This record gives sequence, structure tokens and C-alpha cells, in this order.
Amino acid sequence: MSSGSIFVWEMLGTGILILMGAGVVANVVLKDTLGSAGGWLLINFGWGFAVFAGASIAAPSGAHINPAVTLGLAIADKTPWSQVPVYFAGQMVGAFLGAVLAWLAYKAQFDTHDNPAGTRGIFCTGPTVPSPVWNVVTEVIGTFVLVAWILLSPGAQETEGGLPQLGNSALGYAAVAFIVIGIGASLGGPTGYAINPARDLGPRIAYAILPIRDKGSAEWGYAWVPVVGPLIGGALAALLYLVLPVV
Amino acid sequence: MSSGSIFVWEMLGTGILILMGAGVVANVVLKDTLGSAGGWLLINFGWGFAVFAGASIAAPSGAHINPAVTLGLAIADKTPWSQVPVYFAGQMVGAFLGAVLAWLAYKAQFDTHDNPAGTRGIFCTGPTVPSPVWNVVTEVIGTFVLVAWILLSPGAQETEGGLPQLGNSALGYAAVAFIVIGIGASLGGPTGYAINPARDLGPRIAYAILPIRDKGSAEWGYAWVPVVGPLIGGALAALLYLVLPVV
Amino acid sequence: MSSGSIFVWEMLGTGILILMGAGVVANVVLKDTLGSAGGWLLINFGWGFAVFAGASIAAPSGAHINPAVTLGLAIADKTPWSQVPVYFAGQMVGAFLGAVLAWLAYKAQFDTHDNPAGTRGIFCTGPTVPSPVWNVVTEVIGTFVLVAWILLSPGAQETEGGLPQLGNSALGYAAVAFIVIGIGASLGGPTGYAINPARDLGPRIAYAILPIRDKGSAEWGYAWVPVVGPLIGGALAALLYLVLPVV
Amino acid sequence: MSSGSIFVWEMLGTGILILMGAGVVANVVLKDTLGSAGGWLLINFGWGFAVFAGASIAAPSGAHINPAVTLGLAIADKTPWSQVPVYFAGQMVGAFLGAVLAWLAYKAQFDTHDNPAGTRGIFCTGPTVPSPVWNVVTEVIGTFVLVAWILLSPGAQETEGGLPQLGNSALGYAAVAFIVIGIGASLGGPTGYAINPARDLGPRIAYAILPIRDKGSAEWGYAWVPVVGPLIGGALAALLYLVLPVV
Repeated sequence: MSSGSIFVWEMLGTGILILMGAGVVANVVLKDTLGSAGGWLLINFGWGFAVFAGASIAAPSGAHINPAVTLGLAIADKTPWSQVPVYFAGQMVGAFLGAVLAWLAYKAQFDTHDNPAGTRGIFCTGPTVPSPVWNVVTEVIGTFVLVAWILLSPGAQETEGGLPQLGNSALGYAAVAFIVIGIGASLGGPTGYAINPARDLGPRIAYAILPIRDKGSAEWGYAWVPVVGPLIGGALAALLYLVLPVV
Repeated sequence: MSSGSIFVWEMLGTGILILMGAGVVANVVLKDTLGSAGGWLLINFGWGFAVFAGASIAAPSGAHINPAVTLGLAIADKTPWSQVPVYFAGQMVGAFLGAVLAWLAYKAQFDTHDNPAGTRGIFCTGPTVPSPVWNVVTEVIGTFVLVAWILLSPGAQETEGGLPQLGNSALGYAAVAFIVIGIGASLGGPTGYAINPARDLGPRIAYAILPIRDKGSAEWGYAWVPVVGPLIGGALAALLYLVLPVV
Repeated sequence: MSSGSIFVWEMLGTGILILMGAGVVANVVLKDTLGSAGGWLLINFGWGFAVFAGASIAAPSGAHINPAVTLGLAIADKTPWSQVPVYFAGQMVGAFLGAVLAWLAYKAQFDTHDNPAGTRGIFCTGPTVPSPVWNVVTEVIGTFVLVAWILLSPGAQETEGGLPQLGNSALGYAAVAFIVIGIGASLGGPTGYAINPARDLGPRIAYAILPIRDKGSAEWGYAWVPVVGPLIGGALAALLYLVLPVV
Repeated sequence: MSSGSIFVWEMLGTGILILMGAGVVANVVLKDTLGSAGGWLLINFGWGFAVFAGASIAAPSGAHINPAVTLGLAIADKTPWSQVPVYFAGQMVGAFLGAVLAWLAYKAQFDTHDNPAGTRGIFCTGPTVPSPVWNVVTEVIGTFVLVAWILLSPGAQETEGGLPQLGNSALGYAAVAFIVIGIGASLGGPTGYAINPARDLGPRIAYAILPIRDKGSAEWGYAWVPVVGPLIGGALAALLYLVLPVV
């Protein structure tokens, strides 16, 4: 596949992922929405099926839609290192554009919201207990589960260089959605489960740039955590994969 | 397939969709029900599996059950333009009849409800923040995700002229249910995610006609938004499909 | 398949269905449980996956586990009328035994519950607004959706005389679970969605017999509604199936 | 498969299971988390998709990840008795390590929690109404459903010596996840559904050993219940399997 096509499909898939993922947080966080205060399980399902939609659309490029996945697949020798920068670029651009679209979808509700400083959480993650070391640990562990599943689950063998799926069918990427719902429910409590550097950094840039009414700080001091943690987690999962006994 | 058969299957499928979809909103909105005040995720699952049931039953006609889907498939050259009016007619009649059935299923609970003016939301959508432009934008974006997924997901290639499915199996249309649950959770907050002109207009007509106790206005001033927005969103998704690189 | 085998598999499958279904209501209704007051969606998922478990185990007999399904399949000429009484008997005995097991699983919690009269709802259904005619209508409509889906969904053609499934696989009956979750969310609000005469009558008999502390009335005056309504709904769905155009 | 490989895959799979399972309880129980007080359905989905992730990763060894499953499969003559101790060992070590990882993921939130004695429930189960006999009965019944489904569901025939799955695909073990979600919703109310001796004993040991701030008792007096109950339940399901008519 050409670099241009990889870029386009990853941009589209990550864009849909962030549009829907930032969307569900907007729905729960903002006050004038039908899902306001809808709870954590609503957020988990919103993000899980956002992954389903985004991965389905990015199927031609292997549906990475996550730099930590791309890194893990490269270390595991399933994606050429030469393609890694193209994947990263498509993912970052898509994440930024998806966040802009989510803001447009909720524009009227952003305008009526009464706690503008609280809208940063719609775009990017933050810790409930600030603690750089433990926040990184949490992101490492969550991403480790995701990438280990991608490399080790049944079906992974047939899917070279991408997410495992159910054949070439409409339900193909439902499995990764279930895994992401599970990770969110289980390991998302402390830091909001970025588990994807583009998912956090792209929308954080959008938050910093967009003309959101009375917005607060983009909290750049925390921005490295959801980038470094997931990359370490993805790499560790790939190293585990390389040392495990051949089945 | 004959025009008569298309009409019958689309009517049946859209009827089941709206029966269950209006039903879950009735369950949450009315006071004397077991799901009263059951929350947004309950509504998302209700509508999602309503799509599953309706699409499964409308499989012979490709399970459009949504004029925005039919329009997108026609622009993408997957459904003949000559069949489009028949699809629209079946969908509208089915949506109207499904709304009537939902009212009958909840007849006793409509009669004991203490806020009759609030029952319009059981039938048709409305914005949390009235703003015609932004309400249209929200509906465009939500429907764009739905129709883009229909045209681009794995499995779409094998499904000419209809919703992607998992083979000819009972789980066939579970995928589109997951997408609709995701869109509702993510993008349904501002306008109640019509994302389907028939889903909104058919039940709105039913609300206007049915002898519901002390009912309020059908809010015809808003009725164009959930018709125009979804049609634009479906068309934009089809245009994207046409310009994307061949895989 | 011999009558004895049909009886055994239907008894087992319906027993598991009711054990889990009555179990989830006990979990939500009783006060000393971890799911106490857990909400309608919890009940919907509990019953949905109860159907999944029960149908999976009753696969050899076609997984009817519901007299309304058996009746609909007989009218549609997919199950021999001579087998219908055996199906009914297995379903009723299984439903009774499943309710006894659910009571045993929650025995300590029944003993500490402070509203003994409220425990009838764990076993059998009741209307939020007593109205025999409209309660029947609700049960007719809910069961109609279930049986129409069973007869018309993709995959139904390959499954003679039973529930549609996904091949001979572990996920086989997940589809019917999604349909039942959807029906519960959408149409369960007024009467608690018996949509299955055995599901209601078997546990009602168990409630009347079991030595439950300070129990209340079994409400026999309502018992005909969740028997007659579902049978009518299943029959109507089969009649629709017979008059629809051949695809 | 060599004993060493069985040990490694069962350890990995059970480790992921407990990491995510203990994780979701931590998310709901601890106060400084995003899922705090998130409800029983959140816990059910967290544990269900924890099983999905763990079983997917342990596919090479048949994905038992539960001594009660291993025992049932041995009695049913599907797993050699000589391998049983290796399975048990891998499961216990994995469960212990998974609990340690869950604690690390929530370390900062453990440190700020204001009810340290209440953290035992994150690791191991306890009854809402202490009653050894009835608590055992509840665990027997819940595990019986799980192992009966494993032995009797469609797809079980093709899966010798392990959990039924959907082919060798990414969605393979989604079915057992749905069953576990159902068991949790339905039968988890009285005792927290250990239904797996390793799931309870491994994390209980971890709780006793880990330097958790102001932690309470590990309640060793109850520890035999979630070991003995599930083993009896798994054995009973296997005995049922052996006496049922051949299909």
C-alpha cells in the first residue's frame, strides 16, 4: 500500500475514532445534552464503538489508528519501520480533525455550558490523582493489555500488520471494541485511558487552538504522560510477544 | 426485486425499528413504566437493537430502513435511482405504523402520564439548544458516520446495495446495531440523533394525528432539521466514498 | 429427535433461562445484594444473556425454550404439531425448576429482605398499570417482534424448526439475546415482558409453592395475560410469515 | 502441548483476567476514580470483557483460566488428569500477579482512598449475607451454569479440552464473555460471583501480602467458600454432561 493511502485511511479512521470518542465525553460532561451525567459505562461504550467505527473504516491500512499499536506492530516485525512515520502522521492529523468535528457537533452545547474550564476533559485525558510516575504506570498497563491482545489473540496470526478481525465482514472489528470497552471499565479509572498517544495529543492541540468560549488551560505539563505511557506499554507487549514460546 | 417487495420489506423493517425505538423512549419518558428514567445508555441500546431487529427483517430489500442510507447508496451507484421513491415510501409508511404500534403498546401508560406535553419526545426528536444551523450540523455529522461506515466497512464490498452484514446469518446486522449505539452515545446528545428522516417525520405525523391525551405541539417548525440534516450527511458520505482511493 | 430428548433439552434450556432471569430480578429487587436497585438495563442484559445461555444449551431441540415460539413455528409449518405438547411440557417443567434454583441461589437474601410482598416480581410479571386489554396488547406486540424476527431474519432459512443462529458456533444464539435485550428495553416497560408463557406461569407456580418468608399473593387473576398475550403474538407473527411474498 | 507452555499461557490469560477484573472493582470502589460508584452493570461488563481478553490470550492452552473449568473438563474426559496440576499452578500464579498489577494501576487511588478496610472487595469476594451453606450453594449454581454452557453449547463439540469459541477468530471468545456478564448480572448478587477458585484465592493472597495502606483483614475464614463452591459446581456440570443423551 502506498504511503499516501496509508495516510488517508489512518487519518479517516482516527478521525472517526476521535469524533465519536470526544463526542461521548462531550455528551456526558456538558450540561445541555441528552446524555449529561450519563456515567462511566456510557463513556466506555461510546469509546468502544468509536474504535469499532474507526477501525472498520481504516481496514485497508490495517486499522492501527493508534501510534502505540503501530509501534508494537513494528517491534513485532509486522509493520515495516519505514511506514511508521506515515502511520503516525495520519493518526495525528485525523485525531486533530476528529476533535474539531466533535466540537462542531456540540457547538451550541459548548456555548451554553456553565463550566467552561471543565471542557478540557472532552478533548484530552487527565489524572484523578496527579502523580507522574503512577499515571505513566497506569497508561503502560492499559496499553499493554490492548497491544498484547492484538498480537496474541486468536485471529492475530491471520491478520498481518493490523488489528485482528472476524474475516472480511461487517463485524470484523467488534472484538477490539469489546477489548477497549473492557480496558476502559477496568483500567480507565485513574487517568481516563488514553492508551493512544494520538487520541490525547491531537485533541489537546485542537483544544488549545479552537475558539472555545472561556476555555481553560490545555494542561501541557501532563501531555507527555499519555504519549510516553502508551508507547512504553505497546513496546512491552511486543517484547513479550517476541519471547513467548511458539505455539 | 419488484417495487412491491421493496415496499413491503422496507415498511416492515422500518416499522419494527420505530416500534422498538419509540418504545424505548416511551419506557424512559413515561412515569408508570419499569424503565422510567432509565438513562441515556438504555435509550442507546434500545435504538441500537431496534436497528438490529428492523434491519434483520428487512434483509431482502437490503435493509436500508432509512432514506439517508438509500440516498447515499444511490449516489454511490449501489441502488438504482428508479427504486429510491419506493424505498422512501416504504420507510415513511413503516415509520408511521411503527409509531402507532408503540403508542398502543404504551397506551395505558400514556393515559396515566402526568406531563402530556412531554410525550412528543417519544415520537420525534428535538434539540436541547434550539439553533437551526448547529442542529443541522449535528445531524449531518451523525448521519455521515453511519453512511460512511455502511459504504467503507469491511463487508461493504460483498453487500451491494444494502447494509453490510455478517454473511446470511442471524448475527448479520449486529454490526450496524453497534454503530448506531455508538453514534447515539457519542453524537446523540444535542439533537437526539434522528440520523434518519423517516424515523423522525413518520412518528411526528403519527403524534399529530393520534388521539393522545392532552398532547402538545408536534413542533413542525423543527421538522425540517432531522430531514435535511441526515440527507446532507448521507450524501456527503457517498461523495467521500466516490473520491477515496481504490483499495 | 425422540420426544424424550426434546423434553430433556427444552427443560434444561428453559431451566437455565429462568434461573438466570429470575436471578437478575432477585439481584435488583432484594435489598442485600450487590446489584440492588441496579436499574432496567441491568435487568435487560440479565434476561438477554439468560436467553443466550438457555438457548445455547437447548440447541439440540432447536432452542425454542418458549411456548409462543413453539406455537409460531408449528403454525409456520416448521415444527410438527405432534411435538408441540412435548415442547410445552419440557418448557413448563424447566421454568418451574429454574425458579426454584434461583430462589436457592438467593435464599439468604430472601430471608433478610424487608418487603416480602414485593418478591413476587422476582418470579412472575405484573403490569405497572392494570388494564387487561392493554396489558394483553403489550404482550402481543412484544412477542410478535420476537417470533417475527425468528421467522424472518437472515439465517432463519437455514434453521428449520428452531431459533436462528450463527452456524454451529459458540456465538450461535447471541443474536436472539440481542433481540431480547432490545425487546426488554423497548417494550418491557408496561408489563415486564413475559413474551413467553412458560417464563411467567412456571415461576408463578413456584412462587405459590415455595416456603418463601412472609410471601404475598401470586396474583392468579393476572396469570392468564402473560400466557394468552404471547401465544397470540407468536401466532400473528407466523400468520404474517405465511402471507409475505417469497423472497 | 508441553507442561511449560500450558503453565505460561494459563498464567498469562488468568493474569490478564484478574488485572482487568480487580481493576474494574477498584474503579467502582475507590473514591478518586472516573468510574467511582459506577454500578453493578459496569462491574459485570468489566469482568465479562476481562474474561474475553484473558481467554483470547490463553487460547493456545484452551483458555481454561479457571480451576473449576479445568476440573469439569477433566471429569468430562476432555483434559488429561495429568495436566490438571499444571493448569491449576498457572492459574494461581497468574491470578496473584494480575492482582498485583491491578494494585499498581490504581496505586495512587489506593493511597488517597478514605476507607482502607473496604479495599479487600477489590481483590476477593465476600457475601452480602454471611451464611456458609447458602454462600456455597450460590457459588455452586453460578459455576454450574458456566461449566454446563462450556460443555453443552453449540461449538463445544469442535473445541476439545477448552472453551467454545467462534472459529480461530478475533471474536472467538466473545461468547464466554456474554455468559459471564449474564452470570454476574443474574447470580452474582449474593456472593460477588467468584465462580473461579483462582480468581478469588490468588488475589486474596496478594491482598494479604501487598503493602496496602491501612488495609483490613483478608477474611481467611471465608476463603474456602469461593474455592469449594466453584469446584463442586464445575464437577456437577461435568456429571450432567456425562449422563445426558447423546445428540
